[in-house]
Amino acid sequence: QSNVTVYGVADAFFGYGKMDDNKFTGVESGGWAGSRLGFKGSEDLGNGLKAVFTLEYGLELDDNEGVGAGGPRSRQQFVGLQGGFGFIGLGRQYSPGYYVFKYDAINVIPFSPQFVLANALGSNIVAATPARVSNSINYKSPDFGGLTLNAVYGFNEVNQDDNRQAGDLAAIGADYANGPLAIGLVYSQVKQDAGAIPSEKFPVTTADETKKEAYLGAAYDFGMFKLMGSYQVIKDATLDEDSDKVWQLGGVVPVSSAGKVHLSYGRTDADRDDSDAAAWSLMYSHSLSKRTLAYVGYTQVQNDDATNISILAKRTDEITGAPLTDEDSRNFLIGVNHSF
Amino acid sequence: QSNVTVYGVADAFFGYGKMDDNKFTGVESGGWAGSRLGFKGSEDLGNGLKAVFTLEYGLELDDNEGVGAGGPRSRQQFVGLQGGFGFIGLGRQYSPGYYVFKYDAINVIPFSPQFVLANALGSNIVAATPARVSNSINYKSPDFGGLTLNAVYGFNEVNQDDNRQAGDLAAIGADYANGPLAIGLVYSQVKQDAGAIPSEKFPVTTADETKKEAYLGAAYDFGMFKLMGSYQVIKDATLDEDSDKVWQLGGVVPVSSAGKVHLSYGRTDADRDDSDAAAWSLMYSHSLSKRTLAYVGYTQVQNDDATNISILAKRTDEITGAPLTDEDSRNFLIGVNHSF
Amino acid sequence: QSNVTVYGVADAFFGYGKMDDNKFTGVESGGWAGSRLGFKGSEDLGNGLKAVFTLEYGLELDDNEGVGAGGPRSRQQFVGLQGGFGFIGLGRQYSPGYYVFKYDAINVIPFSPQFVLANALGSNIVAATPARVSNSINYKSPDFGGLTLNAVYGFNEVNQDDNRQAGDLAAIGADYANGPLAIGLVYSQVKQDAGAIPSEKFPVTTADETKKEAYLGAAYDFGMFKLMGSYQVIKDATLDEDSDKVWQLGGVVPVSSAGKVHLSYGRTDADRDDSDAAAWSLMYSHSLSKRTLAYVGYTQVQNDDATNISILAKRTDEITGAPLTDEDSRNFLIGVNHSF
Repeated sequence: QSNVTVYGVADAFFGYGKMDDNKFTGVESGGWAGSRLGFKGSEDLGNGLKAVFTLEYGLELDDNEGVGAGGPRSRQQFVGLQGGFGFIGLGRQYSPGYYVFKYDAINVIPFSPQFVLANALGSNIVAATPARVSNSINYKSPDFGGLTLNAVYGFNEVNQDDNRQAGDLAAIGADYANGPLAIGLVYSQVKQDAGAIPSEKFPVTTADETKKEAYLGAAYDFGMFKLMGSYQVIKDATLDEDSDKVWQLGGVVPVSSAGKVHLSYGRTDADRDDSDAAAWSLMYSHSLSKRTLAYVGYTQVQNDDATNISILAKRTDEITGAPLTDEDSRNFLIGVNHSF
Repeated sequence: QSNVTVYGVADAFFGYGKMDDNKFTGVESGGWAGSRLGFKGSEDLGNGLKAVFTLEYGLELDDNEGVGAGGPRSRQQFVGLQGGFGFIGLGRQYSPGYYVFKYDAINVIPFSPQFVLANALGSNIVAATPARVSNSINYKSPDFGGLTLNAVYGFNEVNQDDNRQAGDLAAIGADYANGPLAIGLVYSQVKQDAGAIPSEKFPVTTADETKKEAYLGAAYDFGMFKLMGSYQVIKDATLDEDSDKVWQLGGVVPVSSAGKVHLSYGRTDADRDDSDAAAWSLMYSHSLSKRTLAYVGYTQVQNDDATNISILAKRTDEITGAPLTDEDSRNFLIGVNHSF
Repeated sequence: QSNVTVYGVADAFFGYGKMDDNKFTGVESGGWAGSRLGFKGSEDLGNGLKAVFTLEYGLELDDNEGVGAGGPRSRQQFVGLQGGFGFIGLGRQYSPGYYVFKYDAINVIPFSPQFVLANALGSNIVAATPARVSNSINYKSPDFGGLTLNAVYGFNEVNQDDNRQAGDLAAIGADYANGPLAIGLVYSQVKQDAGAIPSEKFPVTTADETKKEAYLGAAYDFGMFKLMGSYQVIKDATLDEDSDKVWQLGGVVPVSSAGKVHLSYGRTDADRDDSDAAAWSLMYSHSLSKRTLAYVGYTQVQNDDATNISILAKRTDEITGAPLTDEDSRNFLIGVNHSF
């Protein structure tokens, strides 16, 4: 038993969302961080080498679902070796794109403007499921004076001679942290060969373009507040020749020994006409202890004539099923997050 | 790891059931109490306040199913705060109606006359899945000299302007325990608005009536034996203007330091013609230790011309699929229950 | 918490497979032993009696699946009593046929010639899912001077008067271990009554024959190497009057304090024309510690004019879906196995 640590997050919130006539009222899971249950451990193999494993499953705390049955069923599952050379692992693992929450004042995935906007554009550089890579090999470098490198290759396992790389994801990231400054760079691509046989793991569009993404994020802690922002480009995610941009800027302000105000504003600049969107989020977090936090927040998404991004309320007309474009998505939440 | 307690129940039995020509022989899970695997913990936040969480999943011990994959997938999942004010939690939680097993001599859910009969009438006041409430807020009072109050509100999360409360469950309960006497009262209702859009969580009928239920249970421990009984009314569960009643009376008799005999008889009085049913259950439990118990029992359900309630054997004709009305359901079981 | 031990295996490998034009490249789970997460415990009941339970779930470490959601969802789940009389358990349990890995130099299920060949012939005597028995009663004898007996009966729970035993599995095994010698015998049968109603647990063919299987395995440790082999007969698995045979012979050679070479060759002799197959597997395992092992291997399956057994690569034509008969399946793997 001493070989395993059982850990997790139990997070639930009461939320109210509105988009046109759609109104959501209810209790949801994971307002501050995704609810999860995990099992991890490591074994010293001598000579500075360690065997490590992590089994971590998503929970829908509000629903009638089992361990890893709803939503992100498996957050990460891997076995690997760690040593002076860094880490190498096999399994379902995070892409470098997952760690962008480090440059986001709203590290609250469903309500982060960066996540909401980049996710709507098909990005794999978001701190959520699109940055979880099944069938993958992951390498993480040791810390070179504040600089760490991280690379992942995920096989889509298309089982044929032609197009064998269709759906494969490759990504590389670099993080630099030194005193108050932190900078992150990520490049990520997904092969989308025409005629490729799609799989359940990476559903592949008919486009024969490779989706290519680049991301730059930074954070600077001024003490009185922490400034955070990012800029990213997403090419050929959904259509040929598309080149969409997302940026966000925000900050975290400690207002008491336990309380912090978090604010972020983000915008997209999409190639398609009338397809821009903006979002802002204001949250207050209050630490009740090292492991427990209460939070309250508001997030608004502003849609263009051709977009209908929403968070809590449904984004299509309840009767006709038509997209509710050019509407605002308004979302209020209050909840509690407990880590164990 | 010290933050989490792993706990559960492993319970399996050999069962034989008969209804008309249908004969069941096999091994089933959860004859005495539902098999489960849980993870729980609490953290002291100071000033008498505690953060608490519970993640508890149903297991089908006899089947090829994962954790929380079969039957009651999630028994309960919540995070909450406990203090002088009582408890408040968010997640999937028990309705006050769950705790009726305290007034039932057969607290063995699949074989309890109260459960079998009330469940067949669509009741949410049973110690089983219908009293588990997704998307819920739960409040439990502190103990006021033996009296505790418990209220739950579960959002069906119908995502529209009209009928937003459709499928919502609200329930309140009061329990009083003092010396040998225990009394419980529960009121529970589920909104069933006509035209409401049903959800997977609370499938809503087309009836535009609110299902309303009231329950009174009591137990008195005479030492030589414990007398237990209940009476409940279920209004508009399935049809307009229906008012169905269920009562049961039973007792538990200690017959040795380890052995107990459990007996219960129950009846329904249903509004619809020829729709009454009766059930009785006799069980013997033998404690092998604090955590392990062997049990053997027999349960019979007597059906009316229009009912075909069964427990182990299938309740429809194997060939024609027609309901086997006006037949007895006979059920024998022998098993072992282990808590960990 | 001291009542439960959390344990498991995290095993993943990089694999390359080829069959005709199909080529598989990817990361898979369980190359050396199936990835799993388990919870087990026991309680002393006095007089040498113990209550025991095991809850063990299969993991697809490479995929987006929950605990026990993919592949072998539940490996085993049972509660039972252990004492001077042996063990008796109820739940989902291993058939005696599961333990044939003791007589197999390649105890690496997906790549063992015995498993690959016997599984293709519909055998229940393999160290994998076909030897896991839902709804079962299991008895294991105490050790009689090296001899142990093991019997299981699994109810298919066909819920009717006629054919009530359809799909039921019964098996008995005897293992003898004394110094360098180990011998195993298994008999297993599955009822397949014509007209039986199939169930999800034991899908029953229309054949009215009982599938009957016998197995003899042996191992002898010469110190310099360990010789291992088996012979088995499978009758009426798929067609009336079929009698198929599988044999394998292999050995394990320690080549250093940490390294071992494993080799096995197997063949089938099937009743149907052109339906024989052969397979061989060569693996090297290197212990990095008591709990961690690296492995590399190659397995080849040789198919006849009417068989198309494959391991990693798909065994049907990607375009036409036609079986790729008379082709070799070539499989290379390199991975790491960690027990916790």
